[in-house]
Amino acid sequence: MEEALGRLLPAAGVVPARLHAAMRYATLEGGKRARPLLCFAAGEACDAPAERLEIAASAVEMIHAYSLAHDDLPCMDDDVLRRGKPTVHVEFDEATALLAGDALQSLAFQILGEHRLADDPAAQLAMVSSLASAAGSRGMAGGQQIDLEATGRSLSAIELESMHVRKTGALIRAAVSLGAACGRAPTQAERSGLDRYAKCLGLAFQVVDDVLDAESSTATLGKTAGKDSKQGKATYVTALDAARAREFADELRRDAIAAVAPFGERGARLRQMADFVVLRKF
Amino acid sequence: MEEALGRLLPAAGVVPARLHAAMRYATLEGGKRARPLLCFAAGEACDAPAERLEIAASAVEMIHAYSLAHDDLPCMDDDVLRRGKPTVHVEFDEATALLAGDALQSLAFQILGEHRLADDPAAQLAMVSSLASAAGSRGMAGGQQIDLEATGRSLSAIELESMHVRKTGALIRAAVSLGAACGRAPTQAERSGLDRYAKCLGLAFQVVDDVLDAESSTATLGKTAGKDSKQGKATYVTALDAARAREFADELRRDAIAAVAPFGERGARLRQMADFVVLRKF
Repeated sequence: MEEALGRLLPAAGVVPARLHAAMRYATLEGGKRARPLLCFAAGEACDAPAERLEIAASAVEMIHAYSLAHDDLPCMDDDVLRRGKPTVHVEFDEATALLAGDALQSLAFQILGEHRLADDPAAQLAMVSSLASAAGSRGMAGGQQIDLEATGRSLSAIELESMHVRKTGALIRAAVSLGAACGRAPTQAERSGLDRYAKCLGLAFQVVDDVLDAESSTATLGKTAGKDSKQGKATYVTALDAARAREFADELRRDAIAAVAPFGERGARLRQMADFVVLRKF
Repeated sequence: MEEALGRLLPAAGVVPARLHAAMRYATLEGGKRARPLLCFAAGEACDAPAERLEIAASAVEMIHAYSLAHDDLPCMDDDVLRRGKPTVHVEFDEATALLAGDALQSLAFQILGEHRLADDPAAQLAMVSSLASAAGSRGMAGGQQIDLEATGRSLSAIELESMHVRKTGALIRAAVSLGAACGRAPTQAERSGLDRYAKCLGLAFQVVDDVLDAESSTATLGKTAGKDSKQGKATYVTALDAARAREFADELRRDAIAAVAPFGERGARLRQMADFVVLRKF
């Protein structure tokens, strides 16, 4: 992934150099790469060629990296530490961080249009609109808006879930569906299994994030810990308490693993990823 | 265009309502619609169906509207007036303006992927990557970065042109090329004529903007006048003086009109648009 992203991002020397340096800074050398790994895992289950998966996974990761650069800005979460490094606007400046995020989003769609990712170009157009929809106002950006508006209010577990389905879930589902779309057409059972897997994992991802934010140190996380409670944000830890949140995440993990049974052996990586997402320590 | 944009944007009542209201506010009821009109003019020259052009033109205008919402933010140009109304972050708030811009960019690519715009889906994928490239770090966002870095320095006419080719020119060229791509394949003479037309008009658009910024009132423009010189920005008026800038724009207008001669009668709207872009008073 590091190599693919490094190749797909404009070189830091290309004009405008500062913008390209910021785009590379926001994307490279950091993060768990959970979305790209999920994209590869789903692709492997559908016998997709690695060179296609590199592009699809990079597009998803660029959308994720852009969202982090914007979320960290002073007018949003106002954070100074991300992936163990100063956030983009701290390392560069606010205007450059804003533009780097904007340009990363453009680049994600540029590479999705530019490379051959599916045998049928019409299916590839559906990949474009599915990633765009996951990133947009009814997906990730919409979830972020709901999150901002909820700050200081307490949310029920159901309201929280509706927020996270958008904020984190939509892009994780897109990672899985884009990976699968790079390969052979799945059977009906595989398709609905994969969809259930992605839904469970998207939610589990956020539940675990909330637990880690409450219980881990800034050094372990590579981003500011304890931020949610400090900002008065509703989380699964405040809605359920930490022990029940952890139980909930583990239920989701088992559900996700059961859902991809139709893939048999070829679903091994998907099962590993369910373990990784829920059992991770950072 | 107003009707098409109104239909393609999520309704203001859809959750998250405040974000959707901001996206509609940023896009509807305002602006000259120069890019959509150029898209339609190029499409008409290539016999493209109106229902395809509505989508392509809306996608281009959403990219333009997103860029204005972001450019007006305090960390960028910090402006309070646009299209005769308070800017998005003044009417809503900074975080909502940021997310509305982000989500408008996503929506542009979503609609490009979702609707049938070309007989060949592979050609439609090329439309996606061409709009993305025009919007991105080597296009519009890159031009904005160069503009920010140039503030307070004086630029030569050649440096100015290199900035504006990206900042304004790239999206105007995309508007023309997307419109044409919705129709029949142009001949070689038509294709190169259209490209020269778009290059001339993109540059003329910015030259005229600079003249109007220096010579018109805020009331006429619907945005803050005299801003460039106040912010120490290099413009065609500072690089050439106003009279020579106006002459330069008129040369570009005549060049643009000559370039689309191969279209004959069907190029009438393209010629009208060259007049509109250069002779406009706002």
